[in-house]
Amino acid sequence: MSFNTFGRVFRFTTWGESHGPAIGAVVDGCPPGLLLSEADIQPFLDKRKPGTSKFTTQRREPDDIRILSGVFEGRTTGTPISLMIENTDQRSKDYSEVAKAYRPGHADYPYDAKYGFRDYRGGGRSSARETASRVAAGAVARLVIPDVDIFAYVSEIGGDAIDPARFDAAEIGNNPFFCPDPEAAKRWEKLVDEARKDGSSLGAVVECIASGVPAGWGAPLYAKLDSELAAAMMSINAVKGVEIGDGFAAARLRGEQNADPMLPGEDGPHFLANHAGGIAGGISTGQPIRLRVAFKPTSSILIPVETVTREGAASNIVTKGRHDPCVGIRGVPVVEAMMALVLADQKLLDRAQCGER
Amino acid sequence: MSFNTFGRVFRFTTWGESHGPAIGAVVDGCPPGLLLSEADIQPFLDKRKPGTSKFTTQRREPDDIRILSGVFEGRTTGTPISLMIENTDQRSKDYSEVAKAYRPGHADYPYDAKYGFRDYRGGGRSSARETASRVAAGAVARLVIPDVDIFAYVSEIGGDAIDPARFDAAEIGNNPFFCPDPEAAKRWEKLVDEARKDGSSLGAVVECIASGVPAGWGAPLYAKLDSELAAAMMSINAVKGVEIGDGFAAARLRGEQNADPMLPGEDGPHFLANHAGGIAGGISTGQPIRLRVAFKPTSSILIPVETVTREGAASNIVTKGRHDPCVGIRGVPVVEAMMALVLADQKLLDRAQCGER
Amino acid sequence: MSFNTFGRVFRFTTWGESHGPAIGAVVDGCPPGLLLSEADIQPFLDKRKPGTSKFTTQRREPDDIRILSGVFEGRTTGTPISLMIENTDQRSKDYSEVAKAYRPGHADYPYDAKYGFRDYRGGGRSSARETASRVAAGAVARLVIPDVDIFAYVSEIGGDAIDPARFDAAEIGNNPFFCPDPEAAKRWEKLVDEARKDGSSLGAVVECIASGVPAGWGAPLYAKLDSELAAAMMSINAVKGVEIGDGFAAARLRGEQNADPMLPGEDGPHFLANHAGGIAGGISTGQPIRLRVAFKPTSSILIPVETVTREGAASNIVTKGRHDPCVGIRGVPVVEAMMALVLADQKLLDRAQCGER
Amino acid sequence: MSFNTFGRVFRFTTWGESHGPAIGAVVDGCPPGLLLSEADIQPFLDKRKPGTSKFTTQRREPDDIRILSGVFEGRTTGTPISLMIENTDQRSKDYSEVAKAYRPGHADYPYDAKYGFRDYRGGGRSSARETASRVAAGAVARLVIPDVDIFAYVSEIGGDAIDPARFDAAEIGNNPFFCPDPEAAKRWEKLVDEARKDGSSLGAVVECIASGVPAGWGAPLYAKLDSELAAAMMSINAVKGVEIGDGFAAARLRGEQNADPMLPGEDGPHFLANHAGGIAGGISTGQPIRLRVAFKPTSSILIPVETVTREGAASNIVTKGRHDPCVGIRGVPVVEAMMALVLADQKLLDRAQCGER
Repeated sequence: MSFNTFGRVFRFTTWGESHGPAIGAVVDGCPPGLLLSEADIQPFLDKRKPGTSKFTTQRREPDDIRILSGVFEGRTTGTPISLMIENTDQRSKDYSEVAKAYRPGHADYPYDAKYGFRDYRGGGRSSARETASRVAAGAVARLVIPDVDIFAYVSEIGGDAIDPARFDAAEIGNNPFFCPDPEAAKRWEKLVDEARKDGSSLGAVVECIASGVPAGWGAPLYAKLDSELAAAMMSINAVKGVEIGDGFAAARLRGEQNADPMLPGEDGPHFLANHAGGIAGGISTGQPIRLRVAFKPTSSILIPVETVTREGAASNIVTKGRHDPCVGIRGVPVVEAMMALVLADQKLLDRAQCGER
Repeated sequence: MSFNTFGRVFRFTTWGESHGPAIGAVVDGCPPGLLLSEADIQPFLDKRKPGTSKFTTQRREPDDIRILSGVFEGRTTGTPISLMIENTDQRSKDYSEVAKAYRPGHADYPYDAKYGFRDYRGGGRSSARETASRVAAGAVARLVIPDVDIFAYVSEIGGDAIDPARFDAAEIGNNPFFCPDPEAAKRWEKLVDEARKDGSSLGAVVECIASGVPAGWGAPLYAKLDSELAAAMMSINAVKGVEIGDGFAAARLRGEQNADPMLPGEDGPHFLANHAGGIAGGISTGQPIRLRVAFKPTSSILIPVETVTREGAASNIVTKGRHDPCVGIRGVPVVEAMMALVLADQKLLDRAQCGER
Repeated sequence: MSFNTFGRVFRFTTWGESHGPAIGAVVDGCPPGLLLSEADIQPFLDKRKPGTSKFTTQRREPDDIRILSGVFEGRTTGTPISLMIENTDQRSKDYSEVAKAYRPGHADYPYDAKYGFRDYRGGGRSSARETASRVAAGAVARLVIPDVDIFAYVSEIGGDAIDPARFDAAEIGNNPFFCPDPEAAKRWEKLVDEARKDGSSLGAVVECIASGVPAGWGAPLYAKLDSELAAAMMSINAVKGVEIGDGFAAARLRGEQNADPMLPGEDGPHFLANHAGGIAGGISTGQPIRLRVAFKPTSSILIPVETVTREGAASNIVTKGRHDPCVGIRGVPVVEAMMALVLADQKLLDRAQCGER
Repeated sequence: MSFNTFGRVFRFTTWGESHGPAIGAVVDGCPPGLLLSEADIQPFLDKRKPGTSKFTTQRREPDDIRILSGVFEGRTTGTPISLMIENTDQRSKDYSEVAKAYRPGHADYPYDAKYGFRDYRGGGRSSARETASRVAAGAVARLVIPDVDIFAYVSEIGGDAIDPARFDAAEIGNNPFFCPDPEAAKRWEKLVDEARKDGSSLGAVVECIASGVPAGWGAPLYAKLDSELAAAMMSINAVKGVEIGDGFAAARLRGEQNADPMLPGEDGPHFLANHAGGIAGGISTGQPIRLRVAFKPTSSILIPVETVTREGAASNIVTKGRHDPCVGIRGVPVVEAMMALVLADQKLLDRAQCGER
């Protein structure tokens, strides 16, 4: 079933295909009175924009955002905010071969099996192009949670991880990989460039930290903050794993190692560790929210892979087009956006049930 | 916000606290005409039941299921199915200390920060006892997807993993760990018993496989099958990580290694690999759905941990009560239940949009 | 599709059949810290209880409410509140004839056409018995909106209306019809008794007023306060019409007659009329919310009606059992409950988007 | 709370203000493979279009529809369908006075009380202009239910009703009032023109009939077909009352008069009457769905009404602008659209739970 809305009271709905005339999002439930203009959104889109280095797809899209509703005299009115980005650099001819055979790892085959029909141009709805809509919506979400600071970065590409000892948040913007470790960034230049030249691709791990979240957002069970975040992250194209806090590493610790001991603090407890990633029992603890997201390597590669045609004949496919050699890199602003969207929703939900904090 | 309903058209709502009179679930949207009696549900509850070995909590609950509505003359009527399990072995006196100080790793502190108030008896709503309701609902879900075979097992405890070469599904029921590798099961006896005697606890990894899912369940984006499964799994108590298919390991592969090549097959393509875990572009491919779930070590341990009292004073806490030394073990039937609940919902959603398959 | 949940953030789910072991409701999203015990709910159930006069069904149910979860030490904990009422006076033998032929006006035929199967005992899920669950949930909702005063009454039975000039709210509890006009109440005694003796039944109009609702609850369009109320009221058994404010009468007025002029007042405008029923543009104005609900005559009558059997043969049916000669009478506490449930939800929704008022 | 999405599995979200750059709708959950182009939508918009006679607002909008996503090679792809209509004839200067004082009967005051802020140009989000988005979405919904025939008409203006004996469906398109009684249409010309010249306005009743709905759509309680339709209709601007079947008139009938007797028929029972309006127990009976909707007189009139300013001072207001003297007339295509949208959703919901019919 097609469900293109995410969120419970702060909700957004995205629409649009990679090679249609435009893509967009409708943000509903946004509180009134927030200052909002295109300038609040554009920088986040620019961060995600394709064609900015040789390490990302060469498709060139200005990704100019337009606000079509929900803002009056510079402020949100509490009504739906319609955001639109025109597609300008579609080259649908690149996709003639894709129309005939299924690209392994892509949505091509299951999509066809489901709908009996698909827009094969650039992956259609399944293209990572859709994430621009999320980034735009996420920029609005950030305005709802002004006290929360969110940033993400790439911590690993093709199995080569950053050195935590060299972590420097200030470095994240200084290289095309959103890498907080300048030495890793250097290694990745070579690594990603080689993969690109080989016509191959690499996976990546993105980490995201949200600080300033008060204790009390979330819920004990089905709207657990961890659960909402996992759904949000796993809805991003190419994501195959999510960890909150220590994640799988916690499964290797003993109870006393994994505990986050508390000492008396000024505003609530002072925690001596954060294995839990800022969430216990589904509810934020006041510590930074910390999560990790695994991006598989881009499925579009120039190395031939065995496949079948729509008619069921054996074939080989090489995905030409213009693709990211490591789709996880441009995943960074998308992960940040989804974090902001979940937290904005949780803030409003918490306010609904428990009143203002 | 308290959201205790999961699912979109096949939905269930759970209620109840660890030490209240009963717990239960209301299953809504179930198709009519399915044969259903308590006997279809009880075996799954028995599998999850506490007190069955020294490796699980010594609380003794018969966990007798009652169906209070939605079934007439042995068949579902299409109306809500109310399921109830009485709590019989509450010992609330165990929890007097918990009332005063927050147990690190538990929901205690954030719950109090959120609601200003909490039922401290056995974790109240945050207790793993709630998962019995899920297991009951999951048994109903299985009836909706009779062609799907679901099973889960523990693949790792305290960092000690099974040997895939010794994997034998028939062994899973032969040991108290739901372990498919008899040698690992032997090692774990010692491992878990030692942790228990130390008053400590261990984490675990649970894997789950669903075969018989046709190609076409799921959706390209916000109701991606991966996203729904991640939300479902992460909503289980103590879960901190979810991987679909190769998960984080996929982030270390190159594009050509991670591809699942296709050859012509009888019913749709024959896949040569299943790195994707049976889901591409958010939609099932017809291959087995495969996922992994990380359970942190039980937070309730006998080793003292630094904490604070409700009044904010420094304290130490030892969680006596009766607890699972490795909560992941009893997570196995819960993971299976959540898999069944998501797949039943997806089947109905798919039928809504795309008609019968 | 079976959707047994109502509400957006303050939600309730009901379950249970007329002749099953019990019926109940799960209230989710209720704010924490509210004082709640069975004693807060029972009086509303007693008001709706069958068998209290010869003008209602002679089924005798104590309708004792039990709270199974969500309350600790006398206060709501913010987790789901499970409410249960046992059925004690089922006489399923009354319904043998109903099993064979469809009662016109009842859900019998369409229910069977939909589900292929039905619990024919007392209407099963379609019985007005379900409304006891709503009344219980409504009692919880009232605690969420302590400043709102809600009352309903019957304004018309069988076409015989009260005289607005004799309206006296204090009279509502003094007669078995919830009638605010003592003279009408006298006439109705005769009217309803005659219909009962004839084996016939009568329709009724119920009016409901909620005062103390601040300006600002609701939304411009799809969660319009009028829209939510209309859905709520039309979900009650036997209801076939809903009017907000002047309703259909407004369609006969000219613009200047229907205007609700405003003068400056102390807390917001002072309105000179309330044709709009306290809602303009979907949002409350601060005036009393005022609505009218049409109940059709009970479809269960002793006068034979032509019908068909399950096998499609011509037949006549007489519905014996024990029925209300005018189901609208006992609709009064149900209408009040639905009003409370909608307003509680709207209060929390408004708080989510716009903060505390 | 702002909730601008309607529907459960066939859903639409509208956005846009009367005087913003555009308005639109995103339709989600539409089945794949349906033939859809702008030409399927435009005729319905043309029917609703302003400026077509002196009996409707003189604002001139071409209301050209654009499909921005969800359609490929002329067919729906199962992904969200983004529909956009540009606003071309805004004259915001007309609204300077509205910025200062609240128009009685409009959303002005409660909107401001809620959001603390409003787009006063032409009613902003609360303008009937939004209904163009619904009409566009409704045209898509019709494609989902090709066997259902839906038509609506005006049955009463300013209290002057059609004569059922002269009802002729073929006449509906022959006059500017969607009136099936040519003599009433003649009377209304004079009636509406006089009201217009007086600077006043008139209310209207719109009736809608959907035939071809099979028995079995709907649900016993909270997604009752009546309840969904009531919510849909009451969400339309200026609507204050909804009746299913006989509605309030049923409240004046006795049980035997209101019964819809059944005789054996070819496909299910043959009904001898349709007091119930095609819905019993919340589920369609296979008879035509029949409902009535009350539109209040347009609140924008040239006759001065007492009001208050934003600052709380006494004032008088005359609403100049360009307005419909009887907003119910253009409500006809909107009522049809909402009927189609509800039925499309119910068809898919029914298919989800009960399979193909």
